[in-house]
Amino acid sequence: MALPVVAIVGATGAVGVELLECLEQRDFPLSELRLLASARSAGKTMTFKGKEITIQALDENSFDGVNIALFSAGGSISKVYGPIAVKAGAVVVDNSSAFRQDPNVPLVVPEVNPEAVKQHQGIIANPNCSTIIALVPLWPLHVKNRITRFIAATYQAASGAGAAAMEELREGTRAYLEGKPFTPTVLPHPYAFNLFSHNAKVDPANGYNEEEMKMVKETWKIFGDADIRISATCVRVPVLRAHSEALTVEFERPITPAEVKDILATAPGVRIVDDVEKNYFPMPVDASGQGDILVGRIRQDISDPSGRSIQLFVAGDQLLKGAALNAVQIAELL
Amino acid sequence: MALPVVAIVGATGAVGVELLECLEQRDFPLSELRLLASARSAGKTMTFKGKEITIQALDENSFDGVNIALFSAGGSISKVYGPIAVKAGAVVVDNSSAFRQDPNVPLVVPEVNPEAVKQHQGIIANPNCSTIIALVPLWPLHVKNRITRFIAATYQAASGAGAAAMEELREGTRAYLEGKPFTPTVLPHPYAFNLFSHNAKVDPANGYNEEEMKMVKETWKIFGDADIRISATCVRVPVLRAHSEALTVEFERPITPAEVKDILATAPGVRIVDDVEKNYFPMPVDASGQGDILVGRIRQDISDPSGRSIQLFVAGDQLLKGAALNAVQIAELL
Repeated sequence: MALPVVAIVGATGAVGVELLECLEQRDFPLSELRLLASARSAGKTMTFKGKEITIQALDENSFDGVNIALFSAGGSISKVYGPIAVKAGAVVVDNSSAFRQDPNVPLVVPEVNPEAVKQHQGIIANPNCSTIIALVPLWPLHVKNRITRFIAATYQAASGAGAAAMEELREGTRAYLEGKPFTPTVLPHPYAFNLFSHNAKVDPANGYNEEEMKMVKETWKIFGDADIRISATCVRVPVLRAHSEALTVEFERPITPAEVKDILATAPGVRIVDDVEKNYFPMPVDASGQGDILVGRIRQDISDPSGRSIQLFVAGDQLLKGAALNAVQIAELL
Repeated sequence: MALPVVAIVGATGAVGVELLECLEQRDFPLSELRLLASARSAGKTMTFKGKEITIQALDENSFDGVNIALFSAGGSISKVYGPIAVKAGAVVVDNSSAFRQDPNVPLVVPEVNPEAVKQHQGIIANPNCSTIIALVPLWPLHVKNRITRFIAATYQAASGAGAAAMEELREGTRAYLEGKPFTPTVLPHPYAFNLFSHNAKVDPANGYNEEEMKMVKETWKIFGDADIRISATCVRVPVLRAHSEALTVEFERPITPAEVKDILATAPGVRIVDDVEKNYFPMPVDASGQGDILVGRIRQDISDPSGRSIQLFVAGDQLLKGAALNAVQIAELL
């Protein structure tokens, strides 16, 4: 079988850069890598395995001969160019939310539901970062003892809003420290030494924002279990590129922290960081650049006397496992 | 009645500075303000109502003639000098955790249990910041519909670890932005664009840290209801002086967000910041310098089909309502 031609759509974005890195580091088998971006970036070059590749402007002919197209340029680009890529014969792995709830599109975390990839009709969706980071450690627990409810409070990094938001966090913080005024343009609120409820649109009907509802609906689809009761509070914190989450998880039957640790010790994509003695637990600084989800603070929830609830604290690189790495892992399944 | 002589123990600390500010801004009636600190700070001056007051080194004779002593110099100072101040005839309002669980010491949030002040035997304890910030909005709800369980995930500021931690956050961040190495000395982990599980000691028996257990036990004592099931995840985020908390609150009977808003609209010490349309909710930057606890994201918890659970997001100034202001309010009750 000939090696595939792979395209990255949105190659210059925060996730695009990591997609290229992941393909290189994992030595993804390919015969050609095509880098696509807006006309503004066309003509610039990026380095892949020591060779310069010139970025091409995305257009309707960009996908001729492409076998796998990794999209990370926002939902509207995916909606327009995803079907064009499929028509040209490519399989699309889409990092946007455009197709995630489409019943014909598998939504895949390779550690959870790799078999779903087979049902694709041209497009496979990559879940939202917060969802992936929670589900990698929750799935092996769910398999052993069904999860009936979970409550998440997130601590989300700037990277989730793209490279410009990361830069805004750096620049806004620099200005704050120098006592200079700074007006944010990417995110709606001051970010230096501040935090705010996730800026996704809030549904006035139930009070949840879209980021929170993604966590609910994507979990149902990926786990294939829409009876799990889920609620989330999604918050942006002044951290650059790793998300953390405080999870309270209720199971069908009683479960102990020791059982959870046993299960997670051998779970793929999970690293336990839970040193009570040294007060060392998952931190963004340690999760950044790592493919694994760090899991710690594993304890019996003392607010549930039935012994069925566990609390956890997790951290994962938003750009890697939360986006680029998961997409490349999906491509590897193809 | 003669106006009282008031002493601040730990006057130069992060909370000490705010105590002085609160006394001035609230025009607290006093005949003399005595500023006490370590020998290192003795001789320096601080300004109160336009007059310079010379800081005195704390010793066994510091409390002669003092009627009210506001302590904020750590638990070990409180344990040694609190009883000395009481013996000298002062009423101690103690900001440390030294006496909070002592059955002879009232633990007071003026909006919740002001009447408890009367039972003092010389010492009144000021609760932990995270507890106060949660309880000011939860109490008026609890009165109307008993709270049976709550789960908190906190986003705690540097100020909770004192002025040196705030400076370490600033300096560590500056170093990070300049690409320079920085070794933290006040807090155990890197703080710039990072977060970490609260550095209080973790109990190996149940996996909760002392900060989290304070929230449980102090709530029980202040509310006078040890049947409320509580669990917390306490996290330090790179914010300077206001704590935020994501709260999931279960009530005895069904309750709606509209009822919660109605109750909180007239609750003392609470300001509702809940603009769904503008995506504007409580933020540390807005809570800083404010006496009120900001409350928003008021919504029915969609993970509890019984309709008895509400989710909230709150923010409060850790140094003011979380510490100094609450202590001064207690002193006003005297």
